[in-house]
Amino acid sequence: MPIYLDHNATTPIAPRVLDAMLPFLREQYGNPSSSYALGHAAKDAIAVARGHVAALIGAEPEEIIFTSGGTEANNIAIRGSIGPNGGKRAIVTSTVEHPATDEPCDQLARDGYAVHRIGVGADGRIDPDDARRAIRDGAGLVTLIHAQNETGVLQPVAEIVASAHEHGALIHVDAAQAVGKIAVDVKTLDIDLLSIAGHKLYAPKGIGVLYVRRGVRTQSVLRGAGQESGRRPGTENVASIVGLGEACRLAAERLREGSTAQMVVLTRDLFARLQHTIPDIVLTGHPTARLPNTLNVLFPGASGRAVLEACQQVMASTGSACHADREEASAILRAMGVPERKALGAVRLSLGATTTTREVEDAAEALAEAWRKCMAGTASAS
Amino acid sequence: MPIYLDHNATTPIAPRVLDAMLPFLREQYGNPSSSYALGHAAKDAIAVARGHVAALIGAEPEEIIFTSGGTEANNIAIRGSIGPNGGKRAIVTSTVEHPATDEPCDQLARDGYAVHRIGVGADGRIDPDDARRAIRDGAGLVTLIHAQNETGVLQPVAEIVASAHEHGALIHVDAAQAVGKIAVDVKTLDIDLLSIAGHKLYAPKGIGVLYVRRGVRTQSVLRGAGQESGRRPGTENVASIVGLGEACRLAAERLREGSTAQMVVLTRDLFARLQHTIPDIVLTGHPTARLPNTLNVLFPGASGRAVLEACQQVMASTGSACHADREEASAILRAMGVPERKALGAVRLSLGATTTTREVEDAAEALAEAWRKCMAGTASAS
Repeated sequence: MPIYLDHNATTPIAPRVLDAMLPFLREQYGNPSSSYALGHAAKDAIAVARGHVAALIGAEPEEIIFTSGGTEANNIAIRGSIGPNGGKRAIVTSTVEHPATDEPCDQLARDGYAVHRIGVGADGRIDPDDARRAIRDGAGLVTLIHAQNETGVLQPVAEIVASAHEHGALIHVDAAQAVGKIAVDVKTLDIDLLSIAGHKLYAPKGIGVLYVRRGVRTQSVLRGAGQESGRRPGTENVASIVGLGEACRLAAERLREGSTAQMVVLTRDLFARLQHTIPDIVLTGHPTARLPNTLNVLFPGASGRAVLEACQQVMASTGSACHADREEASAILRAMGVPERKALGAVRLSLGATTTTREVEDAAEALAEAWRKCMAGTASAS
Repeated sequence: MPIYLDHNATTPIAPRVLDAMLPFLREQYGNPSSSYALGHAAKDAIAVARGHVAALIGAEPEEIIFTSGGTEANNIAIRGSIGPNGGKRAIVTSTVEHPATDEPCDQLARDGYAVHRIGVGADGRIDPDDARRAIRDGAGLVTLIHAQNETGVLQPVAEIVASAHEHGALIHVDAAQAVGKIAVDVKTLDIDLLSIAGHKLYAPKGIGVLYVRRGVRTQSVLRGAGQESGRRPGTENVASIVGLGEACRLAAERLREGSTAQMVVLTRDLFARLQHTIPDIVLTGHPTARLPNTLNVLFPGASGRAVLEACQQVMASTGSACHADREEASAILRAMGVPERKALGAVRLSLGATTTTREVEDAAEALAEAWRKCMAGTASAS
């Protein structure tokens, strides 16, 4: 039975989430805009889901916009917020963003905006002083990844928020990987915009959320009818919205029950076991300012791709992109100053809410065995 | 048991469609970008679905882009095709479009494009000569609704396509209401771009398709990672894509078995029954160039809203928008020259693949009874 350690790529839909969705995939098929009972039932279900999402992140229900996913949420936040809120034509972001942030920023650059990308240290974190210097240069928006998808490193969001607001810039946080894994409260963090992706927290693919602080205006990137109070057009994806609502309710429950601390124990155990067999294995990124579920490790002397190919028992990812036959090191690790040769050894192990101690033990053993095989192959080939 | 005659608003998910989706909502949860078997299974399932969609409309699989729905498909087609294909800054559309076409056109108008909206006759159809005159005026794109959502009227697409291509314009057809109800073949019609909305043909809400003819380039309206061959970013909505594929396969099967003709019989029967009790009831739009499932009727002397409120047994829509306490006549009917007072009598009855003769009989009786009640109320009130 293969062990799934790629929860940062996507999560399974939680059984209770699917149970909540099924009525809306079957008999409750009404269009929320329809004025008969079947339509009202759909509309009411969306309202309940909106409440669950809001509760998880400390927002008000009317601050929640449902989108088709994290990518659309980021697009609205980045491309649809500057114009209607002052129109300053500069953006601050970082060198460790997801393409769903990088590409909207590039689009703004093509539209004549100045885009400043702050670098990160060897630990993967932005220096808040660097951020402050970039922001006071007339930024209208600061957009940052909360928890980096490959490394799990958490950015010092609170300090950067303070700089942004001091200088009259909006702050958007791409929290696709953070929400559900750690406590995220938009009011405590004082954030203006925040993105959530359903399929990273046991809800379906194809649904997401943009939190928009009351008073902040956004323009939808898509144009059409007046759904979501005119903030996002298109017939509502009722079943998936209901699923995301239930997933948020369950995430809040898990967090209250201490899931974060439990997860830290599991990932520490996994890394300790790997280190026991492979003393030179390296954990990338900040040692503590990180997601509880994510380990990005560098296998010494073997490529991460080779290790995973030799280890059919573990499903995980390298974080590197393969173009034709050439293996390329992760741009995120390169931005952290990891040399190309070492970066090729990267494997991202991301645990989930159902990952067991037994799976961690088995995965550690299987990965170590695979690494030994690769090393033996390299030795005999040389 | 209420009778659902609002299939143009949304359709239930067909049981076989949900059956096809369920494995991808449960154990087949892989991210199609992942390089292990679970990811490959998702990727392969998308390829199969793409084939089914392509087969239904006579396209090649690589001409199919999955989107979050009809609205996003229209946005890419309208706002993302002119730039990369010649860049002529004029668009031709009509006065009877859906907001998902009207609003992207308005956005282009704000961006400096000339937008020409061709009017329609009393039958709801564009005169191809009007279209030709508008197109030869330097249009880069013609975008038209194939089957109007409120009236079901079909536009003379083939003739307008010829004019568009003669004058070097691209043609986009919003076929959200047409695909699955009538045969639509993109090669026969010689169309460049065509939109499909899943939830109009027994697939889920939140999934759609843009057909893009080989050689025509489009820019995604959303920016992000490289999914859909770089043409639409965001983690693929695997389960809904699989559902839409199965829905297209079933639609092709129904069309082969003569569903169009059977539906015409049912709607004719429904209208005849209404006319029998209410001799002055009017069928709006062209008598034959129309969807087989859609009847937009004008009740004489009573508002459509009042009739539907008095008729809890039938779920249908008025096509009119209610703003606060004021009832507004449908802009589509107004564009066809229907006087405001008459237009307020409109009710759209849209049948579905599972609508039975018995339901038609019962609905006709219930609607006539409701109308009589309204008339009695009006009489006693005056």
